[in-house]
Amino acid sequence: MVIDNNIQFDKNNKLKHFLNIENLTKRHINEILNLADKFASDKNKKFKNLEGKTVASLFFEPSTRTKTTFELASKRLSADFINIDIANSSTLKGESIIDMIKTLEAMQCDMFVVRHANSGTPHFIAKEVDQKIAVINAGDGTYAHPSQAMLDMYTIKKYKGGFNNLKVSIVGDILHSRVAKSLICSLKILCVDEINIIGPENLMPDNKDVLGVNYFFDLEEGISNSDVIIMLRLQKERMHDALISTNDYYKKYGLTSKKLLAAKKDVIVMHPGPINRGIEIDSDVADGSNSVILDQVSSGISIRMAIMSLLLENK
Amino acid sequence: MVIDNNIQFDKNNKLKHFLNIENLTKRHINEILNLADKFASDKNKKFKNLEGKTVASLFFEPSTRTKTTFELASKRLSADFINIDIANSSTLKGESIIDMIKTLEAMQCDMFVVRHANSGTPHFIAKEVDQKIAVINAGDGTYAHPSQAMLDMYTIKKYKGGFNNLKVSIVGDILHSRVAKSLICSLKILCVDEINIIGPENLMPDNKDVLGVNYFFDLEEGISNSDVIIMLRLQKERMHDALISTNDYYKKYGLTSKKLLAAKKDVIVMHPGPINRGIEIDSDVADGSNSVILDQVSSGISIRMAIMSLLLENK
Amino acid sequence: MVIDNNIQFDKNNKLKHFLNIENLTKRHINEILNLADKFASDKNKKFKNLEGKTVASLFFEPSTRTKTTFELASKRLSADFINIDIANSSTLKGESIIDMIKTLEAMQCDMFVVRHANSGTPHFIAKEVDQKIAVINAGDGTYAHPSQAMLDMYTIKKYKGGFNNLKVSIVGDILHSRVAKSLICSLKILCVDEINIIGPENLMPDNKDVLGVNYFFDLEEGISNSDVIIMLRLQKERMHDALISTNDYYKKYGLTSKKLLAAKKDVIVMHPGPINRGIEIDSDVADGSNSVILDQVSSGISIRMAIMSLLLENK
Repeated sequence: MVIDNNIQFDKNNKLKHFLNIENLTKRHINEILNLADKFASDKNKKFKNLEGKTVASLFFEPSTRTKTTFELASKRLSADFINIDIANSSTLKGESIIDMIKTLEAMQCDMFVVRHANSGTPHFIAKEVDQKIAVINAGDGTYAHPSQAMLDMYTIKKYKGGFNNLKVSIVGDILHSRVAKSLICSLKILCVDEINIIGPENLMPDNKDVLGVNYFFDLEEGISNSDVIIMLRLQKERMHDALISTNDYYKKYGLTSKKLLAAKKDVIVMHPGPINRGIEIDSDVADGSNSVILDQVSSGISIRMAIMSLLLENK
Repeated sequence: MVIDNNIQFDKNNKLKHFLNIENLTKRHINEILNLADKFASDKNKKFKNLEGKTVASLFFEPSTRTKTTFELASKRLSADFINIDIANSSTLKGESIIDMIKTLEAMQCDMFVVRHANSGTPHFIAKEVDQKIAVINAGDGTYAHPSQAMLDMYTIKKYKGGFNNLKVSIVGDILHSRVAKSLICSLKILCVDEINIIGPENLMPDNKDVLGVNYFFDLEEGISNSDVIIMLRLQKERMHDALISTNDYYKKYGLTSKKLLAAKKDVIVMHPGPINRGIEIDSDVADGSNSVILDQVSSGISIRMAIMSLLLENK
Repeated sequence: MVIDNNIQFDKNNKLKHFLNIENLTKRHINEILNLADKFASDKNKKFKNLEGKTVASLFFEPSTRTKTTFELASKRLSADFINIDIANSSTLKGESIIDMIKTLEAMQCDMFVVRHANSGTPHFIAKEVDQKIAVINAGDGTYAHPSQAMLDMYTIKKYKGGFNNLKVSIVGDILHSRVAKSLICSLKILCVDEINIIGPENLMPDNKDVLGVNYFFDLEEGISNSDVIIMLRLQKERMHDALISTNDYYKKYGLTSKKLLAAKKDVIVMHPGPINRGIEIDSDVADGSNSVILDQVSSGISIRMAIMSLLLENK
């Protein structure tokens, strides 16, 4: 499937869906980061931006964290939130996705939050829905997880003041990670100086040059002098592809306090969660003073509130 | 079980529950259709009619579409909505339905929306609950699905202006269909001129004469000159009773563009959904200009909002 | 695990969590009962006390009744309520409880309602969470079910005017019952004159003397002249420990109209529900004029609204 990212823009190049980072501009990203900042710094947690609007959550793949974050963001914006229980509905009695979408559209939903195991499903849905509806990609296959990347950018900006003169290292299974792909796109658009990717060679993409990133096999070498380290969640089922045991992975790529010394002293350590303690990251580091992992979760709500309210504002 | 439909009326013959079409009057139906029209034509989607009220959804049979519609209708009327997760509660630790109902009553629920595989269960519940509570039948066994019939009447009125001089054809498994039974009742009450039922003989009820409908074995003959065609969802598990294969069913009763030519040019094609494309209906027809299937879904929300607010108003 | 109940108080001895009855004072209990009374006697069902607040429901053990009651209480206080679907989330991809809690904390939840099969889990969580968050124990192991005890005290006070000169009998499996433990604590704190526990010897705790209760093997002897009888739910899986069949249990401890004659004429019969009709209680009694079982359910909402609003007020 050819995935067309341009469908996320209207004629004035404003976001009408939020599907992928790839062809966003700095302006688009900053608009989201600034709006998230407004929500985050407000004393209140409850806003009226989506009052009278209906948000439908369509998680074809199970999730607790991302789904809960979108649910909370919807409710704090005063939307009516409905969760389509896809697992238990035997995909709506054998209905096709498109018939399901058209049905929810007829129910006057205003926004779909979609997660699917197949890359491009949110794009497919965005192409089919009525123009009144906004689609948000909450993670599709190995392709993109743009709201995660946005909250990560928010976190970096919060701790580093901006994106100039930064060295950012991403550690883990880059090849299969939708988070990594969306992260690299965001960092490139924001003109981050140096992006390193680190991990076993067979978990790395072929197009490292196209991506404009530096590959390191060795963890300490890769994170050396880094301002930001982003650890990816290890998917145990992928280790077979990597021909590497969980133990060996931990020895080589598990982030410990000792290995962390290679980075800058004020490095921030990030992780999309949930973390595998003692596998890709040590508890010392996860709970240590360089970790901003829980702060990422908090920002995840503000970022999703920003994306949701921006999309409906642009309609 | 003898099912007593009179329990749905109060002393002034106003609706206090919504259980079955059978002994409604034209006035009752028109009251619902008119109120639905008010909700449908309002620019806002959010109303205060059920603010401070609690609606409990009791789906003993799985459903996605009807359940979601009632959930959305409740939320758009500002009710507190709770879904009793019956499947996962092992029927509330072996509690009887009546104890469950009495418990929810004690929790000061104002309305129960009930779907059950056994005909008459919503009536049984309505008989037992406190008079402050309204019960809505969201489909019981093969007996009735009155809110579906109401939304279908709404759709017919919207497209045909009213119910005079109409020829309405219903196609499929009439015998086991609660939708068909509620439809025929509604059409009779609204004095529709000609009602045809079409399908394999062994999927037809015995009391065709009592019902006052015409039976046709042949699809094109039955829909000939029709103003409205309502296709029923084919239940694959029923085909065994019909001694007919899905393929044969499609050949004889699947609605195609070609067969549709037998009907009037401005015929509307309806279906309660979810549709089985290529079985009871062709995609050409389902997505074609005569189809009002998605509009039925939209009206489903307004109709349920109307029924819910009317019942609580009558209390 | 040593369970520290003092963590539920702040420096001024006000409740900041609600975990266990054991070291509450009369003042604490009366504060809750009085506040519940305000909610119960208000004509409105909807309040603004928790507007803008987020309540997360963490039921590690399945429940319908208690969970629904807390959900309704949250919604009637205008809180944003989210249910963490622990069963279906495979415990958040293998995340530890503490990581899950910290994540929800980062999502700015204000209150956790926790049920867990292990005694002390809510205390453990209360110890770990940020001080802005209130934790409510919705039942842990065989240890405590304090909100149930509070609603029972509310019911006794409502029907008996207070707690002086009362004889209260608790019947069933005291040993394994968290309800019984919280009940006995509450009754002691409120200075109830005489507390009897009744049931098979091997379902009784060893520390009857410490508890300050009287043990009776015989039901009629135990409930003789009682003002209040509280029947516990029989857990069939425990009967093996009791070396007693369900039939024998019913014969000896099932409350029938005939046996009830041993108690005072105006005795009230209580049960936490759901009841096993014909096992621990006869339908004659459960539905009879001495039963206040459904009224307990109603009070369950007011009591939970009182606990929730009090805790957030104290923050």
